[in-house]
Amino acid sequence: MKIQILQKKLKEGLNIVEKISSKSLTLPILNNILFSTEKNFLKLTTTDLEIGINFWILAKIEKEGKITVPSRLCSSFVNLLPDKKIDLEVKNNDLIINCENYKTKVKGLSAEEFPLIPNVEKIKSISFDASLFCKNLNQIVDIASFSNSRPEISGIYFYLTKNSVITAATDSFRLGEKKLTLKKSSLNEECSFILPQKTVKELINIFGEKKGEITMFFSPNQVMFEYQMEEVSHPQIQIVSRLIEGEYPNYQEIIPKKFTTEVILNRNDFLNQIKIASLFSGKINEVRFKINPKEKKLLIFSKNPDLGEYQSSVLGKIKGEALEISFNHKFFLDGLLNINSSKVILELNGDSGPAIIKPVGDNTYIYVVMPIKTN
Amino acid sequence: MKIQILQKKLKEGLNIVEKISSKSLTLPILNNILFSTEKNFLKLTTTDLEIGINFWILAKIEKEGKITVPSRLCSSFVNLLPDKKIDLEVKNNDLIINCENYKTKVKGLSAEEFPLIPNVEKIKSISFDASLFCKNLNQIVDIASFSNSRPEISGIYFYLTKNSVITAATDSFRLGEKKLTLKKSSLNEECSFILPQKTVKELINIFGEKKGEITMFFSPNQVMFEYQMEEVSHPQIQIVSRLIEGEYPNYQEIIPKKFTTEVILNRNDFLNQIKIASLFSGKINEVRFKINPKEKKLLIFSKNPDLGEYQSSVLGKIKGEALEISFNHKFFLDGLLNINSSKVILELNGDSGPAIIKPVGDNTYIYVVMPIKTN
Repeated sequence: MKIQILQKKLKEGLNIVEKISSKSLTLPILNNILFSTEKNFLKLTTTDLEIGINFWILAKIEKEGKITVPSRLCSSFVNLLPDKKIDLEVKNNDLIINCENYKTKVKGLSAEEFPLIPNVEKIKSISFDASLFCKNLNQIVDIASFSNSRPEISGIYFYLTKNSVITAATDSFRLGEKKLTLKKSSLNEECSFILPQKTVKELINIFGEKKGEITMFFSPNQVMFEYQMEEVSHPQIQIVSRLIEGEYPNYQEIIPKKFTTEVILNRNDFLNQIKIASLFSGKINEVRFKINPKEKKLLIFSKNPDLGEYQSSVLGKIKGEALEISFNHKFFLDGLLNINSSKVILELNGDSGPAIIKPVGDNTYIYVVMPIKTN
Repeated sequence: MKIQILQKKLKEGLNIVEKISSKSLTLPILNNILFSTEKNFLKLTTTDLEIGINFWILAKIEKEGKITVPSRLCSSFVNLLPDKKIDLEVKNNDLIINCENYKTKVKGLSAEEFPLIPNVEKIKSISFDASLFCKNLNQIVDIASFSNSRPEISGIYFYLTKNSVITAATDSFRLGEKKLTLKKSSLNEECSFILPQKTVKELINIFGEKKGEITMFFSPNQVMFEYQMEEVSHPQIQIVSRLIEGEYPNYQEIIPKKFTTEVILNRNDFLNQIKIASLFSGKINEVRFKINPKEKKLLIFSKNPDLGEYQSSVLGKIKGEALEISFNHKFFLDGLLNINSSKVILELNGDSGPAIIKPVGDNTYIYVVMPIKTN
């Protein structure tokens, strides 16, 4: 391999593919980046065997070839180089990187040992705005939590229809669901799958700030997210991820369709009060609300025998039955933090039924949380 | 105790004194802040038994008194309150904090159990610009390192004359010295002491951004740093620290007065090159320089049998003998990072004598570092 490439372009690619390479002791080659030539492109590839990523950069290819080199070392090195032309050359299993007066020889491992990234056929696909999609995923991704006994809820659930993508996550104490309406899709039937949480976090990392669209292609065992180059009609980034096997719980059943008490509150005031109350909550993270439709405010209490006690109130519109109810402040805050509207609706079902938090004026997001039973 | 105080003022004080309170399991009261009234001030006090801090805030005192409450809880709580008037009241060993609709009761511990902060008589003193003094300390503070066998080099050495403060730090591999010239002082004789590194770090934290002067008072066992309020002639902050016993090594002896080779280089270029070289250095962190007065550049090499090798060069003015010399890149970088001038001077004494790094055009800072012996 012998090529010329711009430092700025190589740096961009290395910084993205580096995120996926893993520190594997049993399979050291997973710590490496595969450099390979493909037509007039340099292709960078990394994988942790769960996710694989390809990144293409236009380059001047003098001689084709391929090699793998340690990812952190390589990206740290290229990051510190000046924004000039870089010469890359493979010699005796070393990658020579020269840029102006900087001359380096990086020890490589043979490209033959590098695992193959599975190919996903471009048959079924849907496309959406990259940054909007990532913003939506951000509202639910942290709710999922690793579970050995129920691996299916370790991932993010995707339910696709012709014109929408519904994503959901739960850890069995609370649940978030977000709906995205699509402009175009080549889907003729509904379909669903569970994507590992790590993949979703990497999607947000990599595509969160991108302009334009990403296209999702799917096969029974893998999905692929593809982002096109702006200048030429060629993929720039492809992320291929395995899916989690198993059936996602029928969570629609636990979303209450009615409520006994409804409160509409200013989101920021409510959030701030719960943060303060959390300072005085005890071991089970309990904060308590007293709600009475005769009052125009929700009262907040917390108490810890070792620290002291707190009480405050937030103005709100209250409808329905009076009640006292307790929540784990962490779970409650997570829901509020995922909502960006200025006002929120709290729908309660007695002091032990599931509660709903949702934004006012936006029916695409819903957060369900179980109260703490205090009796 | 019953007082009224502004949230903004109380928050400022709590955030500063909180830094000194410690998480002591054997003496839980050290985790607390002492609130006490003093004339028309609220005085906040914390200590970790090595450093003590007092902070005064103008307040409306309705009833005198004192109490101690947990520092993190108290400052986290007050930080989240609105910028309004706060009522503080002591009732049955609880501190009641009320602000608008926020009502809190914080469990306290008796003020009688709180350790006394030693008083330093205001006899011998010198004054200097707060932010300049902290900037100077920043150039040496991280060089000191904890040593059980040589506690004296765990601290920062202060040597005071009528019109200067010389500060120095070493970990026996390298040494930094900084000189500050004073406008005024009430010192009639020279004096010296060793201040714990932790105290110096807290001084930088607390006074680094302050406008105006701080005054240092000293007694044989303690020093006190005092910062005055702008509005009234009353101390706002007092920090009292114990001193480290023992005799500081006569480090002047090891600062070479001559050199065999001198190189003048662009500081940023040199710094960047050593950062890159460090990526390829081996277990002993070695980077190697080849210096030849016939060339107009210093060559930089590094090499790691597992990773690869690197070479580059920096333009420079070279005088004296040709040589090859190796340094630990961490120690070398620390010196360069403490220098802000655009050009630096490197003075070498063969390949095994101590080397000096200093700024061009500023004779107040000197950094001495030992080379790695490679033979």
